[in-house]
Amino acid sequence: MIRIGIYGYGNLGRGIEAAIRQNPDTELVAVFTRRDPASVRIATDGVTVAHADTVKDYIGKIDVMVLCGGSATDLPTQTPTLNEYFNVIDSFDTHAKIPEHFKSVDSVSKKAGTTALISAGWDPGMFSLNRLYASAILPDGKDYTFWGKGVSQGHSDAIRRIEGVLDARQYTIPVEEALAAVRSGVSPTLTTREKHTRECFVVAEEGADLERIEREIKTMPNYFADYDTTVHFISMEELKRDHSGIPHGGFVIRSGKTGLSAEHTHVIEYSLKLDSNPEFTASVILAYARAVYRMHEKRLTGCYTVFDVPPAYLSPKPYTELIATML
Amino acid sequence: MIRIGIYGYGNLGRGIEAAIRQNPDTELVAVFTRRDPASVRIATDGVTVAHADTVKDYIGKIDVMVLCGGSATDLPTQTPTLNEYFNVIDSFDTHAKIPEHFKSVDSVSKKAGTTALISAGWDPGMFSLNRLYASAILPDGKDYTFWGKGVSQGHSDAIRRIEGVLDARQYTIPVEEALAAVRSGVSPTLTTREKHTRECFVVAEEGADLERIEREIKTMPNYFADYDTTVHFISMEELKRDHSGIPHGGFVIRSGKTGLSAEHTHVIEYSLKLDSNPEFTASVILAYARAVYRMHEKRLTGCYTVFDVPPAYLSPKPYTELIATML
Repeated sequence: MIRIGIYGYGNLGRGIEAAIRQNPDTELVAVFTRRDPASVRIATDGVTVAHADTVKDYIGKIDVMVLCGGSATDLPTQTPTLNEYFNVIDSFDTHAKIPEHFKSVDSVSKKAGTTALISAGWDPGMFSLNRLYASAILPDGKDYTFWGKGVSQGHSDAIRRIEGVLDARQYTIPVEEALAAVRSGVSPTLTTREKHTRECFVVAEEGADLERIEREIKTMPNYFADYDTTVHFISMEELKRDHSGIPHGGFVIRSGKTGLSAEHTHVIEYSLKLDSNPEFTASVILAYARAVYRMHEKRLTGCYTVFDVPPAYLSPKPYTELIATML
Repeated sequence: MIRIGIYGYGNLGRGIEAAIRQNPDTELVAVFTRRDPASVRIATDGVTVAHADTVKDYIGKIDVMVLCGGSATDLPTQTPTLNEYFNVIDSFDTHAKIPEHFKSVDSVSKKAGTTALISAGWDPGMFSLNRLYASAILPDGKDYTFWGKGVSQGHSDAIRRIEGVLDARQYTIPVEEALAAVRSGVSPTLTTREKHTRECFVVAEEGADLERIEREIKTMPNYFADYDTTVHFISMEELKRDHSGIPHGGFVIRSGKTGLSAEHTHVIEYSLKLDSNPEFTASVILAYARAVYRMHEKRLTGCYTVFDVPPAYLSPKPYTELIATML
């Protein structure tokens, strides 16, 4: 049994808890929270909810600690700190800061003799793997990543900060024509605007200036100005009824050439269509938590990423069964 | 530089030769053939074509020998035999016999201290990897593999054996409705007939009984009887003009559920659209040849499959660049 700890109990932590039920070789030991543990109700009977401050009491009782905090402020300190005492896995997703985070975690785990895996999930994670595999197979080619259709939390938050907005939900949507062009193998050059559109569902305060809100959204630098953006004003009831899910997904496509005169074109495509972004991310993390456990058993200490993990380590099935049934 | 030998110079061997040109960290040392070497013309200047019988003269001069023979009779003996002297990679693709082949190769390489990787390519190969990743992530789910649109050499050969047939080309085609049902996440149960159709282009002898040929094709057990099959009679000129390519491809799709009550559905899809089946297979093999080289450098001896290879080993790029640009 792989003994799992969940550190942080939001959407991702709840997803890990649900995933543990689908993986009989894993068990949940404890959920750690910075809130008052008495106020946190979890879905698993008989499992302790402990205060984050007491985490050191669990040294030796947890094989892999799953960090479920945010990339902006939580993980840069939590992952290295906890890695001194536990094998850890996180879903650090600020792409530009991954090398820095890697170094910081690696120096801790190498010293402590623990194992860490950072940036598990689907992007970074499964999408990264597919970019790597496809580029290694087709060196003469070009990569494209499209996201959506799905909810962007960051963009939804940006809209909520506008005066007169009560709540909002933003969907990132890949442009069908761009997808079709990439799939055709022509390796088009695509601008930001040509790849994705943004659709916003906004609940405004009564009497708010809707025209101003729409203008502020559409001209917001970085978030919306470079995109074709659609704004729909809806009621709070409609938002709750029609937009409470957290779907997401996307596409990683590489087209490339082979042959003595680059005469043959190939298209490799990986896509995800997810009803629940946090639950899918949690499912990827739990499979990689199994790998962390196995790598630690093989005395592979230090920090790793999905790029380092032999695929067989992710599966609970014996190797002989894998090659007999899946290869 | 990774020094590569090509053992067998058919479509796959030529594909390896072309792929080596796209991978500057690899170089072709020699091509081995069972034909008269003087009769074999290769595309690379200054590289030896040697008789297969002289292969032992190259011990120590080749880092990875790429075996390009067939799975039926060549590889079961060639891979273990050559593995005594060389690190080897093959594309053994008789799925049912992979465990047996694995054992036979593994016992040689463990004794000889060499490294082997069997069954590289796309199915087995990239498709296998995607079945493994998807099933580890979504344990509560169902897998589907579709092939095509592409040329099946085995089915084309079966038609050619019918009396009165001069030549033939058979395409395996996935059924769009079946693909759509699987993508919708409903996990349908599909019969053989519901998943693929077969389309045959046949050149018949002058005066042959076309009705009989068509009947013999459509009722042929194992090959066609379980499928909806279409037969087109065409001229030799048309066959050469319109059907001389070797395209292939396919889809690996897994849909699965997550959540405390399995309330969320996810669909993971991997697909390939290939202009040239042998050149793409060769491109996969060459990336894994790089991995074999690296594994041997780390003293990882014995037989391996794509399930054992850390993805980073496939890329010529340094790890720091991979995590900075692809993760």
